[in-house]
Parts: sequence; structure tokens; C-alpha cells
Amino acid sequence: MIPQPLQNLMKHLSKLPGLGPRSAQRAALHLIQSGESMATLQRTLLEVANTVQTCTACGNIGLTEVCHICTDTKRSPTQICVVEGVDDLWAIERAGIFKGHYHVLGGVINAMAGVGPDDIALAALINRVEQMRPDEIILALGASVDGQTTAHLISTRLAHTGVTISQPARGLPIGAEVDYMDDGTLSVAFSARQKFG
Amino acid sequence: MIPQPLQNLMKHLSKLPGLGPRSAQRAALHLIQSGESMATLQRTLLEVANTVQTCTACGNIGLTEVCHICTDTKRSPTQICVVEGVDDLWAIERAGIFKGHYHVLGGVINAMAGVGPDDIALAALINRVEQMRPDEIILALGASVDGQTTAHLISTRLAHTGVTISQPARGLPIGAEVDYMDDGTLSVAFSARQKFG
Repeated sequence: MIPQPLQNLMKHLSKLPGLGPRSAQRAALHLIQSGESMATLQRTLLEVANTVQTCTACGNIGLTEVCHICTDTKRSPTQICVVEGVDDLWAIERAGIFKGHYHVLGGVINAMAGVGPDDIALAALINRVEQMRPDEIILALGASVDGQTTAHLISTRLAHTGVTISQPARGLPIGAEVDYMDDGTLSVAFSARQKFG
Repeated sequence: MIPQPLQNLMKHLSKLPGLGPRSAQRAALHLIQSGESMATLQRTLLEVANTVQTCTACGNIGLTEVCHICTDTKRSPTQICVVEGVDDLWAIERAGIFKGHYHVLGGVINAMAGVGPDDIALAALINRVEQMRPDEIILALGASVDGQTTAHLISTRLAHTGVTISQPARGLPIGAEVDYMDDGTLSVAFSARQKFG
């Protein structure tokens, strides 16, 4: 009863993270009922497909073969920040707290989901460390089991290079209410407590 | 720092109902990291734009100028079911409970949102009723304030035609737990209670 092209559109929209079948239906109806936004979305997809590419050095996304971070001579090649995905890189750039280079793994190890060391950009990272000889690797991976498994594996595989390996501090996020925090966070926040003032 | 074409894509994705800025970012990254699904989505949008149209009679969406429901001679023109949107029509068709014609209003009256009687297909409905002379109009609008305001307005505007106007029964939905039901639903369910067995 729903026209086939529209069913196809719903199917493809529902594959987007965050959209289930019902929200894909709402989104498809929204697009069809505002013809302008459908044309715009279609044009924008085409432009992205034709212009955006993955940096061959670090895995960031940009408009050039090597991204603007890798080619920025004002950024220090002595530090490489390892992140799971491009969205993590964007979050750190937004915070403006890091002026070194990045390495995007494109995932973390997850045995259940069948993601092993060869499925992420781990060999490329080891290569880069051996070539670039940075002073420090910052493992900005999630504080989850998968993130920490990956961090441990990376630190093992980089041991022979002698590079310093660090990770962001664990503790209470800014603005957090103590009674809303989970036990794990409270535990690390207490054991790593700092002198006040 | 995020490439401009990608920012445009995120902006247009975030206009879809159900997607905020963060989920639009995730969706855009998903699309870019699986080039195939970006191409497919783009092709599908183009196909929908080129083929899908709104039925000039009832407001349903289809591949023809007048939709397959309006042209189906096995459906009775003596009943018109008035719905807010095409998704409501699809839900009723899915349930397979109605074999008459539809009329899609394209919205309900909402003074706060500036939606008045002229912004929905109300004049067209009155026209159709005067032309088609159905026996019954079923107002399958939401049981919300806006839905009921609209239902009252429609019944006033159709009074001169003498058509019977009905609405779906109110009560407990199938599978509902009484203690999870709101006072309004319980109230209508009790005052409209039916003999058991």
C-alpha cells in the first residue's frame, strides 16, 4: 500500500543510526511533504560523496588526501592522540585542548561483535609511531571494557618503541552530582583524589 | 574543522524529525564510512522525488495522480474516514479494518502553532462531502486537544449536509495494564463500560 520507492527510502533511512522503522517513516513523510528538503538532502549527499575523503595518514575526514591537521606545521608531531572515531576527534578539537596529531582507529576491539586487532587501524598506528617517533601516545578511548581492552593491546604492541603512553584522567565530570554517579566513577574519583584549592 | 559539505549534510539530516544535531552527526559519519549506503540513499531520494505524488482527491501518497484507494471500485464511497496524516491512513490500512475512502487533512488545528482551518484540507473535505454524499464521516483524529478541536470544527462545518459523523471508541487499549493508564482514559473507559461476555 505504501508506494515502493517510498518503502525503499524508508528502508535506507532506517539503516541510519538513531532511526528505527517508525522514525524512518516519519522522516520519509517529512521529506516527501517538503519537496525542497528532499532535493537539498539529495544534492548534499552527492556533494559529500564527491568531495569528502579519509586522510591517508591519520584517518580523519577532510577534503584533501592528507587532512589539515596532519599538514598543519603549527601542530606538534611529538604527540599522537589515539581515538576510536572521527566524532571523538571532533569533540577534542572542539574543546581546543590538544595541539598534536591524531590517529583514528575506526573502532575498538569487541570479540562479541567480531572486531579484532586487524579490523582497526592498529598496524598503521604502530607504523606511524615507528616512523614519526613521537614522545607520547595519548589513548583517548572510551572508559568501557572494549575501549580499555583496546588500550591495553595498543600499549603492549607499542612497548618495543619505548614511547610514553598516557590516558585522560578518570573522575567526576564537571557539573556532576555525586549521588547520580555510578560506583566505578566514584571509586576512581576517590582513589585519584586531588588536594583542594 | 568539519568539512563544509559534511556540515551541510549534517544540517539537512538534523532537520528530519527524530534526528537532533548529535544523531545527525552520527548518521552523516555512518553514511560517509559506508560509501555504498550514501549512494543508495541519494538514488532512492531521487526516485521518490520523481515518482511519488499526493492524491488530488484524498491527500494520500501514491504513484498516480489519484491514489489506488480512491480508484478502487471495491471500496465503498459511502464512508469517508478523516485522518490527520498519511501515517494514520497507513496504520488503519495495516489493521485492515476499513473499506471506505479516506480524507487526509494534512494537520490539525493548533492556535499556538498558528495552524488554522485554512491550513488544513477542510474546505476540500466539505466539497467532497457535498459531491460524494457519503452516509458517514468517521473522524479518526487524535484524542488530543488539537485533534478534538479539529473534530468539533469539522462536525460544525458539515452540519448542513446532514451526514452522520462518528469517531472511534475511547477506552483501554488492548493489553493495557489498568494501573499504567492515565485518569482521562480510565474515566472514559468506565463511563462507556460494556456488558461483559
